[in-house]
Amino acid sequence: MKVVLHPHHPSSVKPAFEGAAELEVITPASDDVVRALSEAAVLIAYRWSDDFLLDSLRWVQSISVGVDQFPLGEFAARGIALTSARGVHGPQVSEHAFALLLALTRGVGAAMRNAEKQRWRQIPGVEISGMTLGVLGLGTVGEAIARRAVAWGMTVVGTKSDPTTYTGVAAQVFSPADTIDVFNIADVVIAVLPDTPDTRGIVTRSCLDALEGGWFVNVGRGTVVDEADILAALDSGSLAGAGLDVFDPEPLAESSPLWTHPRVVLTPHTAGFTPHYGERLLEVFRANRAGFENRGDWVTRVV
Amino acid sequence: MKVVLHPHHPSSVKPAFEGAAELEVITPASDDVVRALSEAAVLIAYRWSDDFLLDSLRWVQSISVGVDQFPLGEFAARGIALTSARGVHGPQVSEHAFALLLALTRGVGAAMRNAEKQRWRQIPGVEISGMTLGVLGLGTVGEAIARRAVAWGMTVVGTKSDPTTYTGVAAQVFSPADTIDVFNIADVVIAVLPDTPDTRGIVTRSCLDALEGGWFVNVGRGTVVDEADILAALDSGSLAGAGLDVFDPEPLAESSPLWTHPRVVLTPHTAGFTPHYGERLLEVFRANRAGFENRGDWVTRVV
Repeated sequence: MKVVLHPHHPSSVKPAFEGAAELEVITPASDDVVRALSEAAVLIAYRWSDDFLLDSLRWVQSISVGVDQFPLGEFAARGIALTSARGVHGPQVSEHAFALLLALTRGVGAAMRNAEKQRWRQIPGVEISGMTLGVLGLGTVGEAIARRAVAWGMTVVGTKSDPTTYTGVAAQVFSPADTIDVFNIADVVIAVLPDTPDTRGIVTRSCLDALEGGWFVNVGRGTVVDEADILAALDSGSLAGAGLDVFDPEPLAESSPLWTHPRVVLTPHTAGFTPHYGERLLEVFRANRAGFENRGDWVTRVV
Repeated sequence: MKVVLHPHHPSSVKPAFEGAAELEVITPASDDVVRALSEAAVLIAYRWSDDFLLDSLRWVQSISVGVDQFPLGEFAARGIALTSARGVHGPQVSEHAFALLLALTRGVGAAMRNAEKQRWRQIPGVEISGMTLGVLGLGTVGEAIARRAVAWGMTVVGTKSDPTTYTGVAAQVFSPADTIDVFNIADVVIAVLPDTPDTRGIVTRSCLDALEGGWFVNVGRGTVVDEADILAALDSGSLAGAGLDVFDPEPLAESSPLWTHPRVVLTPHTAGFTPHYGERLLEVFRANRAGFENRGDWVTRVV
């Protein structure tokens, strides 16, 4: 099968797809993508241009989980299949969320700030084992986090767009409208939400206050919570600590007090990085191929 | 039952023991311990003085896992039972070890150094899922680490004084004499060893070199490895990163390059801290009491 791989992609993608014996991978330069597409019906891409809408195009495998950059209506009208990369993010984003959480609960973040000044100051840590974790967004990544939490002795609650379809390890699942209930119940809340009109600002100051001395971690999108609310909740004591990989806007403004707050641990939007991105995207692609060739079901088809 | 609680103890111990309805807890000032012991046959202590060796003393429950501070021969000669606190450290030290490891693999440590300077610099992380973890010292804490690792998709190997008695989740267990084999096999090694004549310097430069770009975490004692070897292995590339909670000597010297090394994550010997110390020590004490009263087996008796 001939596929065109758009040149803008994580470095592990090209070797993974080129290593697949059943594929003939064409990897054009940026301004040669259209010409390359005249030879293939399948495009693997993150970036989109309407110039790619050739009549021969039948399937676009997105390199990202989000697919907002593609013209979904146009694809539907032309019968072009679009599949998302859902499934590539579980392990690394889960591990990143726990890296941020444990850096708070075990005092690693504060110790690193002190280390830069050669300061030996013991900060007593706490245990997440036995705590209740709230996961905002029990999708593929949220469930990967939930499974790791349960394996380490935590109880999990959370939210999901349609709680009635939930089949995972969480003990209790609420609809997004009841997000504050998760903050009322949980000791720690991890947000894994995408940026959509429905999720913007969903983590209110009242939510953070409901944690009553707990922890908040965000590995989804910065728009779900207001930075000023996080700072106020930290200062009032509602938040024991915040672990943040995402911000609004990004990069985080140089003037933000989050950078140096003693109870904030932060990373610059790196939760999604993994050397396994390419091999995992290839797995998603291969599974979808069964749908494309009418041999089985699509697994991540959006259009 | 009357017990004397020595005044030097973690803050969670006194409320836990005083909350036990079956105990009458005497908590004297430091210079009143001997007098208090004239009223009780049982002492709960971390610190020791030979003045405590009254004829009435029958059982000492150590507050620490290590019991080197007690005169073991004298206890044996006098028929005084000594029980260690083994079992109190599993959850918090496990979580701390993973906090250090994940701070390395997800770039949290480096990001925190950058945060102090308002620097947004993305460092691609890796995944521990799928890696092989070596645990030096598969005792109670080592096994708690091993179980968490297996639950997160790691394969575990390790060392134990007598590998033939091992019954845990590790796939392969070596004797301490074959420590280098663990470094040959593993991507990450976590040391949980106590300080004994046998463990001093057991992690040699050759061991670190055998990691070939892996990670080393130490939550046992600083004496198992030479600081200069860690620095040399970091600089040669044998070590991708080191996560250290323990040092030799402590506090870490102000002149140590470990404080500010970009691939070192460090905490000031805080892995053992937990708000649950007291309740967990009480559990150990209650279990041992069955042995003391000839109703069952001692669980952590040393002498």
